Amino acid sequence: MLDSWRDGPTKSSIVDFVHGVTAGVPVEERIAVFDNDGTLWCEKPAYVQLDFIVRRLADKAADDPGLRSQQPYRAAVEQDLSWFGAAVTKHYRGDDDDLNLLARAGLQLHMSMSVDEYAGHVTDFFSHADHPTFGRPYRACTYAPMVELLGYLADNDFTCYIVSGGGRDFIRPVAQAIYGIPPERVIGSAQGLKLDYSGDLLIQPTLDVFDDGPEKPVQIWSRIGRRPLLAAGNSNGDDEMLRYCRGLRLLVDHDDADREFAYSAGAERALEHAGAQGWTVISMRRDWTTIFDA
Amino acid sequence: MLDSWRDGPTKSSIVDFVHGVTAGVPVEERIAVFDNDGTLWCEKPAYVQLDFIVRRLADKAADDPGLRSQQPYRAAVEQDLSWFGAAVTKHYRGDDDDLNLLARAGLQLHMSMSVDEYAGHVTDFFSHADHPTFGRPYRACTYAPMVELLGYLADNDFTCYIVSGGGRDFIRPVAQAIYGIPPERVIGSAQGLKLDYSGDLLIQPTLDVFDDGPEKPVQIWSRIGRRPLLAAGNSNGDDEMLRYCRGLRLLVDHDDADREFAYSAGAERALEHAGAQGWTVISMRRDWTTIFDA
Repeated sequence: MLDSWRDGPTKSSIVDFVHGVTAGVPVEERIAVFDNDGTLWCEKPAYVQLDFIVRRLADKAADDPGLRSQQPYRAAVEQDLSWFGAAVTKHYRGDDDDLNLLARAGLQLHMSMSVDEYAGHVTDFFSHADHPTFGRPYRACTYAPMVELLGYLADNDFTCYIVSGGGRDFIRPVAQAIYGIPPERVIGSAQGLKLDYSGDLLIQPTLDVFDDGPEKPVQIWSRIGRRPLLAAGNSNGDDEMLRYCRGLRLLVDHDDADREFAYSAGAERALEHAGAQGWTVISMRRDWTTIFDA
Repeated sequence: MLDSWRDGPTKSSIVDFVHGVTAGVPVEERIAVFDNDGTLWCEKPAYVQLDFIVRRLADKAADDPGLRSQQPYRAAVEQDLSWFGAAVTKHYRGDDDDLNLLARAGLQLHMSMSVDEYAGHVTDFFSHADHPTFGRPYRACTYAPMVELLGYLADNDFTCYIVSGGGRDFIRPVAQAIYGIPPERVIGSAQGLKLDYSGDLLIQPTLDVFDDGPEKPVQIWSRIGRRPLLAAGNSNGDDEMLRYCRGLRLLVDHDDADREFAYSAGAERALEHAGAQGWTVISMRRDWTTIFDA
């Protein structure tokens, strides 16, 4: 059990915590919440969902050639991923023009599509899309030790939820297969939906939930109605969720340039709180014998 | 099983449907959704939650006597329930002044209170509040045949959710005890919430979700990620949820003036759709041997 975790203080803190819980806490209170991007699966060099969106933008431009001269479609067709990176960089410099273009195009990309048809596109994407540098399918880019942790918690009658800043309906179609998490336990960002006359729910060009930062505890309460006993994240967007957790807080530190990526940008505040408040920092380099399944 | 249901076409349609499902549908797809007010518990002469709000308004006016001269506090202190009824009647005539007063006071009533403290007030209310005409505790005003149906569905590996226009956090504290439904399976209307620095979620004076009508299917998808196989409601506010359901649609018809109340106001559209589309109408008078547990 937890074989891909090296013996040491991190593994011990998890095992000791779980033993304490199983000794005294009723099953229904054993709630654990997990961020997804960078916590359960790899989020570099870009979010998996961004790759999906870029491919879908290119598909749309193929169907409607007039779009090819416009951004973000042109960058998508030309596979110019640097344009998407620059949109974010410019945002941090106060220039939101490109990010607004991308956001608007992203919200319109699946406008009026039913949630079932959207799920079909997501399933199709995960059936063939590969990670750009690891040369393995995205669906095999989940962190093996974290998937093992999900299983260990389930074996100890914890109920595990995903609480992601990424799209709820983007994660659901694969969550059961790659994590053993059913759709009702996936919480995430979501576009507006509207019932049409045939009884389908159609995607609207609006953002209904942006499940990041302070919104994560609100969504957890809204969906679960209990305060988690264990929470795991990796970035500033998980800081409030970790603060909301009553028990064991786990923060994945991306410190393994050889086997994955080394970065702390976007996790500064969470790492500082982890140090100040005694959260358990998971060193990918030291604590994990392997990153991905063979 | 289903002993408080009289033999006849309604009971048969339920039993036959459940047999069909258990013969061929995977357990994880056996999702059932239930409206609460008027479907699982009595909603007349007024919503249970309105009685709770009136009592809380009176408590607030007792703490702050300056409020006693203002509406809706004065009506609450004087137990003048007709003022609350008239506020709704005036709304239908195009005069929203009193309803706006009530809505504003209602949203401010628990402002900045933590969700845990709010749950305490709800638990306290249900521990002593009685129905105004039946002389029995509100918690004993659930419909025995519907509670029996929840149990029958659970025995057949259905997962049952409450999907209420009433307050999610008003129903949760009693849902396990009176329905066997845990908090994560209660969906309903909700005020905004905000994380404070100590990690508590505090109630905001805003309405975050109004879970009625077309919002019910959206909330069902958001929370469950599957389309229900069985849905039960009693009013126009359940019409879209019933339309969204793929399988058995149940509409409770309040036609029993002797044992409960007889009314169809607010259910006209749902009853019309039930007739036109072959939904199963439950006659409280004919189909139920008893309304409440002894």
